[in-house]
Amino acid sequence: MILLDGAATAKSIKLEIASEVEALKKSGQKVPHLAAVLVGDDGASMTYVGSKVKSCEEVGFVSTLITRPSNTTEEELLQIVDQLNRDPEIDGYIIQLPLPKHINEHKILLAIDPEKDVDGFHPVNVGKMMLNLPCFLPATPAGIIELLRRYQVPTEGKHAVVIGRSHIVGLPVSVLLQRNAYPGNCTVTIAHSRTSDLKSLCKSADIVIAALGKPEFVTGEMIKEGAVVVDVGITRVVDASKKSGFRIAGDVNFAEVAEKCSFITPVPGGVGPMTIVSLLMNTLSAVKNHR
Amino acid sequence: MILLDGAATAKSIKLEIASEVEALKKSGQKVPHLAAVLVGDDGASMTYVGSKVKSCEEVGFVSTLITRPSNTTEEELLQIVDQLNRDPEIDGYIIQLPLPKHINEHKILLAIDPEKDVDGFHPVNVGKMMLNLPCFLPATPAGIIELLRRYQVPTEGKHAVVIGRSHIVGLPVSVLLQRNAYPGNCTVTIAHSRTSDLKSLCKSADIVIAALGKPEFVTGEMIKEGAVVVDVGITRVVDASKKSGFRIAGDVNFAEVAEKCSFITPVPGGVGPMTIVSLLMNTLSAVKNHR
Repeated sequence: MILLDGAATAKSIKLEIASEVEALKKSGQKVPHLAAVLVGDDGASMTYVGSKVKSCEEVGFVSTLITRPSNTTEEELLQIVDQLNRDPEIDGYIIQLPLPKHINEHKILLAIDPEKDVDGFHPVNVGKMMLNLPCFLPATPAGIIELLRRYQVPTEGKHAVVIGRSHIVGLPVSVLLQRNAYPGNCTVTIAHSRTSDLKSLCKSADIVIAALGKPEFVTGEMIKEGAVVVDVGITRVVDASKKSGFRIAGDVNFAEVAEKCSFITPVPGGVGPMTIVSLLMNTLSAVKNHR
Repeated sequence: MILLDGAATAKSIKLEIASEVEALKKSGQKVPHLAAVLVGDDGASMTYVGSKVKSCEEVGFVSTLITRPSNTTEEELLQIVDQLNRDPEIDGYIIQLPLPKHINEHKILLAIDPEKDVDGFHPVNVGKMMLNLPCFLPATPAGIIELLRRYQVPTEGKHAVVIGRSHIVGLPVSVLLQRNAYPGNCTVTIAHSRTSDLKSLCKSADIVIAALGKPEFVTGEMIKEGAVVVDVGITRVVDASKKSGFRIAGDVNFAEVAEKCSFITPVPGGVGPMTIVSLLMNTLSAVKNHR
C-alpha cells in the first residue's frame, strides 16, 4: 500500500510555486495577490480561510483577508465583490462558503468576475471545464487529479466510482476522471443517496472517490483488493479521548480499507492540503492570464 | 416492449407549443423568432437545418435561415453572430455544426450571447446546467429526458450507462440523469472508447443511452432483459437495396435488442424529433425570459 501523501505533495508543489513567484519578482513582474472574504464566525470556515492565507504567505503571494460580521447584507457583500472585481491589484479571490442563510449564494457566485474566480465555482468556469477549455478548475477535484498525477496512479480504462454528487467535488471530479487525458480516461460511475446496492458497486471499482461527508462510511468489505481510494471527507467526530473533545474523520474507515489498497489518501493530510495548493495554482495562473 | 415514439411525442409537444404561440399572439405579445446559420453545403447539415426551419413554421414561430458559402471567413461569421446578438427581433439562434475547418468553433461559440444560445452550447449554459440553475439545456439530452418523462419511465435508483462522452450528448445527458429530479436520480456510468469490458457493463445497466456514433454497435447480448434503451445514433449506411443507396442506422441493433427491452427508441423517429422539439422549447422560453 502506498500512501497518497497530500501534505508532502502539497509541500513540494508550494516550493515550485514559491520559485515561480521569485522568478516573477526578479523579472519585475506582479506578485500574485489572493483575497479571501469571510462572512460570519463559523469555526470551520475560519480554520479553512486561515490555512489559505497562511499558504499564500508560504509561497510569497500577497494576501488580503476581508472579514465581515454574520449580519452583513447581500447588498453589502455584492459591493465587496464589485470592488474586488474592479481592483487591478487583486488577481483572484474567494468567497468562503457557506454564507449566512439570508444571503443568496448563487447571486454572489454569479457576480464574481470569472477571470478572478480562483475557486472555479462560476458557471463560466464550470462550463469551460465541461468543454475542456482553459479555465480555473474547482480546487478539490483539481487537487485530487494532481495527486493522482504526482503518484503516477494508472487511470486509463479503470472503473472509478465517485460517491457523492456535490457541485464542488463529486460532480466535477467525475467529469475530470472521464476526460480523454491523464489522469483521466476512466469509466466513471457517479453514485449518491439514491444508488441501490452501493456496496457491490464500490467493490467492483478500481478507484473510489469518497465525497459524501459521512464519517467512515466506506468499510473494508466495500473495497476490492488493490483498489485506489481517495477520501475527500473531513468531519469532526466526538471523541472523549481527545483533549479537544473531537477527532477529524474521513469518509473512509482507514484502518480497514488501507490494507486492501494499492494507493490511499489519509485524513487529514490527503486531499485537504492539495485543495489549498490548487487554489494557489489557480491564483498563479490568474496572474499569468492577466499579464 | 413499449416504443418510445419520439415522432409522436414531438408532434404532441409541437401542438402544445403552437397553442402557446397562439396565446402570445392573442395577447399582443412577440412571436418567437429563431434564426439558423448554415455555413457550407454539407448534406446532413442542410437536412438538419431544413427540419428545424420547417418545425418553426409548424408551431407558428418566425424563422430566418442565413446561409453562407463554405469559404466564409471566421471574421465574417463573427460579424453575423454579433448582428444576431444585437437584433432585438431574434429571440434565439443556432450556428449549425460542424463548421468548415478554417473556422474555430470555440471562438464562434464563445461569441454567442448566452441569452440567445438556444442550442445550450455556450459555457455559461453548460455551467448552469451542471449547477442546476435555469438555463438553455442542450437539445439532444433535454429531448431524451423529456421523452423519458412523457412515457413515465422509472429512473430513480436505476443504473444508467451512457456510451459516448461527447460534449453535446454523452456528457450532458449523464449529468442530467444523475440529478436529484425526475427523470433523474440514476446511478450513472459514462463509458467510452477506453472503457474495458463494455459488454458486461452494458449488460448490467437498467438504462442504456447509446451515443457513440457506431451503427448497430449495441447488440442483443449486451442488453439485460427489461432494460430501457435510448438510441442517439444516426448514421448513413450503404444499402444497395434502397433507391437512395443508403439507409439510416442507429447505434443499436434494433431487431436484436427491442425484444429484450421494456422501452426502446426507434431510429429514425426516436431521439431525432425530440432534439428539434427541445430547440423549439428553448426558443419559446427565450421569449419568456426577454419579456
